[in-house]
Amino acid sequence: MKGTVLYGPRDVRFEERPDPTIIEPTDAIISLPFTCVCGSDLWPYRGIEPINQPRPMGHEYCGIVEEVGSAVKSIKPGQFVVGSFATSDNTCPHCQFGYQASCVQREFMVGAQAPYLRVPLADGTLVALPEMPDDDLIPSLLATSDVLGTGWFAADAANVKPGSTVAVVGDGAVGLLGALSAKQMGAERIIVMSRHEPRQKLALEFGATDIVTERGDEGVARIKELTDGIGADSVIEAVGTQEAMMQSIRATRPGGHVGFVGVTHGVELPGLELFFSHVHLHGGPAPVRRYLPKLIDLVLNGAINPGKVFDLTLPLKQVAEGYRAMDERRAIKTLLRP
Amino acid sequence: MKGTVLYGPRDVRFEERPDPTIIEPTDAIISLPFTCVCGSDLWPYRGIEPINQPRPMGHEYCGIVEEVGSAVKSIKPGQFVVGSFATSDNTCPHCQFGYQASCVQREFMVGAQAPYLRVPLADGTLVALPEMPDDDLIPSLLATSDVLGTGWFAADAANVKPGSTVAVVGDGAVGLLGALSAKQMGAERIIVMSRHEPRQKLALEFGATDIVTERGDEGVARIKELTDGIGADSVIEAVGTQEAMMQSIRATRPGGHVGFVGVTHGVELPGLELFFSHVHLHGGPAPVRRYLPKLIDLVLNGAINPGKVFDLTLPLKQVAEGYRAMDERRAIKTLLRP
Repeated sequence: MKGTVLYGPRDVRFEERPDPTIIEPTDAIISLPFTCVCGSDLWPYRGIEPINQPRPMGHEYCGIVEEVGSAVKSIKPGQFVVGSFATSDNTCPHCQFGYQASCVQREFMVGAQAPYLRVPLADGTLVALPEMPDDDLIPSLLATSDVLGTGWFAADAANVKPGSTVAVVGDGAVGLLGALSAKQMGAERIIVMSRHEPRQKLALEFGATDIVTERGDEGVARIKELTDGIGADSVIEAVGTQEAMMQSIRATRPGGHVGFVGVTHGVELPGLELFFSHVHLHGGPAPVRRYLPKLIDLVLNGAINPGKVFDLTLPLKQVAEGYRAMDERRAIKTLLRP
Repeated sequence: MKGTVLYGPRDVRFEERPDPTIIEPTDAIISLPFTCVCGSDLWPYRGIEPINQPRPMGHEYCGIVEEVGSAVKSIKPGQFVVGSFATSDNTCPHCQFGYQASCVQREFMVGAQAPYLRVPLADGTLVALPEMPDDDLIPSLLATSDVLGTGWFAADAANVKPGSTVAVVGDGAVGLLGALSAKQMGAERIIVMSRHEPRQKLALEFGATDIVTERGDEGVARIKELTDGIGADSVIEAVGTQEAMMQSIRATRPGGHVGFVGVTHGVELPGLELFFSHVHLHGGPAPVRRYLPKLIDLVLNGAINPGKVFDLTLPLKQVAEGYRAMDERRAIKTLLRP
């Protein structure tokens, strides 16, 4: 098959790769009707996260089971499945506490920007749908695999409850789906920080009540102003930079919660400011597996349409253009058709 | 009156100071049957926290109301009261959320190592007892003002629940009372890190089930070992150094909680490690006012005896020796009799 490999900054190649095969008896091979590019793929694409060797790209996936290893019990060929970007056995203590992205057997998925994918720990990692979904639901199901699951975790980690005032730092797909998640959790007010018109529009469609275009200290001041000087109950941090983290902490009221899911790059949190901020801080790689059954249900019953974050669809062989469009903010998220 | 003033590193003077008087109409003046030295007083005493001018010391207090300002409504002369090291109006939004130590009118108390003390925002800051307490309960009531209130907040911030496995980093009065608090909250296992025999003994008396003498990475490894490789559900950080913070984060299981109350000095948290740790982080100056009514009840009904942390009693005029004894770890906490 042909798959996507990153060779270095802005060097995305769609090239011949070995067909995935069962390596461990707990593996499954799935075929992917769609795949996509993640905001986090832009870190190595931009050279901010250095890579030492060519890296097969893609970690978001859903599709049809083609083959399973001899030890796979619950997942069967022919099923439509969704999995997380982090594999999990779903039985270890961390999994049982709901932190499957810290599973003792965790592997981070790679190679999903391709027509076929090997998924380790298939029984623990994959969630099978009761039947084959309609084609038009597949982008939304694909979104549950990471961007929605991550936005949902961010809102949960930020303790969003009915009536909450929520601020969202970051207008990428995860931030936008954080707003959607907050809306689903009953937030009364959802303030999204964005200065990009198509993203503002989608944020409002997903449930945002206010858009803030200011950044940094001015953005914090604007959120304070919108909340009677108090600060937000919950802030979703969906960027991963020092500026975004500090903006999130400073926009939160004492006793409020920051849910941070942007993969942190070069972040150092000043202890004393954190101490006096009185915020709760929680985040990390989203334990998507915990939320998948619920999120899949919400998609199947039509309550949410997270697939709207895909505003560019390309044939998989044009994957390099898919990266470029996101890098240049011409697209929120690129959907790829193998 | 004579009171305690710190002039510089290890330069504690007991000297003539003006008698406190009502300055704002919301003030109260109270007389102090006992006062004490706090572990946090050792930061400036040791010169780690520089001071620019002579600083009146002492922020833990309980005692008898001598006089109140014209705007004070609920607090009356003759009452026995306990207050927090942070003043609060107890009505602002932050107070209403239970974060009185972030009250919009907050002041940090000073000057309590003296026979008399001015307490601002008396109605919001002070909690009056229904009647005069027995003399032997006064040290425990004094402990609720800061060290117990802070240890209790740490356990609460660390999400201690019935059945929890808790680790305590720091064997000062706050850490020890964090162990007592965890016990009261129903923790099943309480692991206290201490290599100092009198503190180990008191920890066990307060409810510790295990003592760990290793520190740093070895201490973390020992806690992992004691918890079947999982890590603690809840870790109380009661020191404030980089080493203690990292030890706390690393000893916590993914999804577990760190409650940090040691006033942070020179702490910088590495974002990426925090991200992948999956811990919850919460702390800061304890909102003691939130817990005072409950803690006073527990003392009055004999359920707890936090005053046991005072293992040295001196006349107030020997306050300098009280600091020395704590600095040299000859005393856990010094009680002073004006």
